[in-house]
Amino acid sequence: MASGSSPSSSASPSFPSGSSLTPGASSLTPGASSLTPGAAPKDAAASDTPVVQARLDNGLEIVVIPDHRAPVVTHMIWYRNGSADDPVGKSGIAHFLEHLMFKGTRDNPQGKFTNLVSDLGGQENAFTSNDYTAYFQRIAKEHLAVCMEYEADRMKNLVLTDEVVAPERDVVLEERRMRTDSDPSEILDEAVQAAVYSSHPYGHPIIGWNHEIETLDRTDAFNYYERFYTPENAILIIAGDVDPEAAIDLARKFYGPIPPFGAPPVRVRPREPEPKTHRLVTLSDEKVEQPRYQSVHLVPSYRTGTPGEAEALEVLGFLLGGGQSSLLFTTLVMDEKIAVAAGAYYMGTALDDTRFFVYAIPVPGVSLEQLEHRITALIEGLTTEGFSEAALTRAKTRLVAEAIYARDSQTTLANWYGASLATGMTLADIAAWPDRIEAVTAAQVVDALRYLDNRKAVAGYLLPAEAA
Amino acid sequence: MASGSSPSSSASPSFPSGSSLTPGASSLTPGASSLTPGAAPKDAAASDTPVVQARLDNGLEIVVIPDHRAPVVTHMIWYRNGSADDPVGKSGIAHFLEHLMFKGTRDNPQGKFTNLVSDLGGQENAFTSNDYTAYFQRIAKEHLAVCMEYEADRMKNLVLTDEVVAPERDVVLEERRMRTDSDPSEILDEAVQAAVYSSHPYGHPIIGWNHEIETLDRTDAFNYYERFYTPENAILIIAGDVDPEAAIDLARKFYGPIPPFGAPPVRVRPREPEPKTHRLVTLSDEKVEQPRYQSVHLVPSYRTGTPGEAEALEVLGFLLGGGQSSLLFTTLVMDEKIAVAAGAYYMGTALDDTRFFVYAIPVPGVSLEQLEHRITALIEGLTTEGFSEAALTRAKTRLVAEAIYARDSQTTLANWYGASLATGMTLADIAAWPDRIEAVTAAQVVDALRYLDNRKAVAGYLLPAEAA
Repeated sequence: MASGSSPSSSASPSFPSGSSLTPGASSLTPGASSLTPGAAPKDAAASDTPVVQARLDNGLEIVVIPDHRAPVVTHMIWYRNGSADDPVGKSGIAHFLEHLMFKGTRDNPQGKFTNLVSDLGGQENAFTSNDYTAYFQRIAKEHLAVCMEYEADRMKNLVLTDEVVAPERDVVLEERRMRTDSDPSEILDEAVQAAVYSSHPYGHPIIGWNHEIETLDRTDAFNYYERFYTPENAILIIAGDVDPEAAIDLARKFYGPIPPFGAPPVRVRPREPEPKTHRLVTLSDEKVEQPRYQSVHLVPSYRTGTPGEAEALEVLGFLLGGGQSSLLFTTLVMDEKIAVAAGAYYMGTALDDTRFFVYAIPVPGVSLEQLEHRITALIEGLTTEGFSEAALTRAKTRLVAEAIYARDSQTTLANWYGASLATGMTLADIAAWPDRIEAVTAAQVVDALRYLDNRKAVAGYLLPAEAA
Repeated sequence: MASGSSPSSSASPSFPSGSSLTPGASSLTPGASSLTPGAAPKDAAASDTPVVQARLDNGLEIVVIPDHRAPVVTHMIWYRNGSADDPVGKSGIAHFLEHLMFKGTRDNPQGKFTNLVSDLGGQENAFTSNDYTAYFQRIAKEHLAVCMEYEADRMKNLVLTDEVVAPERDVVLEERRMRTDSDPSEILDEAVQAAVYSSHPYGHPIIGWNHEIETLDRTDAFNYYERFYTPENAILIIAGDVDPEAAIDLARKFYGPIPPFGAPPVRVRPREPEPKTHRLVTLSDEKVEQPRYQSVHLVPSYRTGTPGEAEALEVLGFLLGGGQSSLLFTTLVMDEKIAVAAGAYYMGTALDDTRFFVYAIPVPGVSLEQLEHRITALIEGLTTEGFSEAALTRAKTRLVAEAIYARDSQTTLANWYGASLATGMTLADIAAWPDRIEAVTAAQVVDALRYLDNRKAVAGYLLPAEAA
């Protein structure tokens, strides 16, 4: 939420809460951490009218996902620009713009629409990720037009004055102080991301470096807005109790008149070089009560992997660390009792090479070194022993089932489509996802284990203050 | 040397050979690692005619350093662009251009000038650093004009065809394979630099990432050449047995006709955020015979530091690790006998925030962890105990004396001026350097120790292959 008044729950990228299917509704969604990529429910076609895609003459892509269970609609605009598209030296500008997009237009001064949505019983929110920025409202279906009118208006007519920009920059700086700089866990995560990426901008924080946020001004914001907030750079997702053709006609009415920029923005994304060393990032702080170990591995994303590679990593993440029946949890927490929590997670929805996270919290008396050694040995063991067919089948079935259950949330469903499409996937990719997961073989999962080689990983140690 | 046929001695940035005063004559000079910045001999004015500075109408800066001891002259052109100015995704292009600058012009086909210099008993070389690229010849003084004629010719008329560019790219890739990718020590150093810089381009290797070098083509090279190889981006240094006014007239004749570009290039240099964590980069490899510990600290440069700060770091580097009378050497090698080598080094000549290196090689049976703990404790001890006035005075005197001795080498002298001017210093800064060093107080040196806080450092562990 850009206004900053009601801080939404902050998703922790490197430390997901067991399931990978929580919807990404925080202001700073790292990567698409909380979304299973391209995950269309297998039975979508059976239970609902099909998903419809269209494109306006100005380049705006439209996807309508019918969902007739309740008379509500989710209206989302996804811009194909996130923090990794921040110009050099201007980290944080994508997120800053997300804030500024709530500052109003001539016809819709600040607060007018927020109050209207609230009066109509709806919700609105926005979030900035590595690869995209998204705005959404969830509201009774008869109010879809008013959402479109407003969203189209601020795509083109945002008013940015110094009176608005400077104070909002202070809001962002305060947000950074509160959420990042006062939290050792966040400081460590930021340094771990920086260590994973020496060249690619995923290493820069979504909220930006403090000293760069401080320099962002009206000109920066306006130039950024002009270049990135254009119809050909956006995807409109409408999920809910609508007739697709009528929804597209409505979209044409409101979004159609916006002139295109002429070309989509260039995304400058240097490829990250292959890691060749082990890197350990350590932070000791008196505010830390619970030590924590994490390791982060550079891996292909759904977009950059060879066929089947991302799917194998997805299954591997689930087998290794998805919930309380995972290998890490059963081994470290239940059997060996050396950890109070343990898990793993693949952040597959990303335009570029992405991250696979492993984490664990030790029981008192167990060091992070011991945890790291045990987890490394466990992963090395899997490389030689492999997985049983039964375990693999169970994992794939549960992974796909969880994706299907998650579609019960219209917002989650819309998020899947938006995040997938904004990172280079197609509707066909989304539709085929369950089949692609089912097709993953044990050999592919074992092969994917090579990405978890600890000699090429970035480890993070969060520790209480050292004894003086 | 760009031709690649005679590999010049490779300076190791993070592991200087005790003295900081070796001239930087390798093709890849990291930062200005081997140059004491702004170091004009204190008695320059007394022993020689003064240094003369001029600027041509096209923007070319000229510095003449008279040195009449022998009838030779050193002729250097310094371009104010190094690897840290490589465009995003095109790492290595500054160094690649250094190679291509030997490919000849219409009037001076490849090899013609190299052979001529050789026939005349001279030497030529070139090197690429983080902040600059330099070309030089050392030759009998009567041949100064021919060097100028040639250097001016290739500033403007370089011929770049696919036939020349593609094979030379293979030469660079082979250079990378030989010097970096087959040497665990270099691989580690590259990863350590990347860990030090998460945002600033000093984290990218001078030679470039392999996958980016592979993509450099004629268009990249030509665009880069057009933008950076201009008179207003260059500094001409002439050191030797010349009359300054005559040398400047000669320079006007040869360099004067080159049209200016119109504006100097913009150097995109985002400031590195303050480090907040300890980062340890580890590489184990069967090719490693001698384990090595290093730690690298982000520090201000002569250009970015507050008054006196860089000078204090320079003195600190010398006190801590400059040669066999330094604290690290006497403590670890001579007294405690836990290391066979130990030293420290401040790389002060840099446009942006730079690096302070500490290193040690353990005796058999001592681990790198033990060395790191001992060095950390030694540095913490200095923070409370400080330095004796006697030790400080001795260090400052020796540091300045070494700079004066080093001027016996005309090339070293010319390199000082070139590197200092190319990183934002002035002739006045250079002239005042000995006095500024002499003025450093014990309190300033102790204050500079805060930059060596191990909790904010990047450590590098080079280790033999692990037992299977």
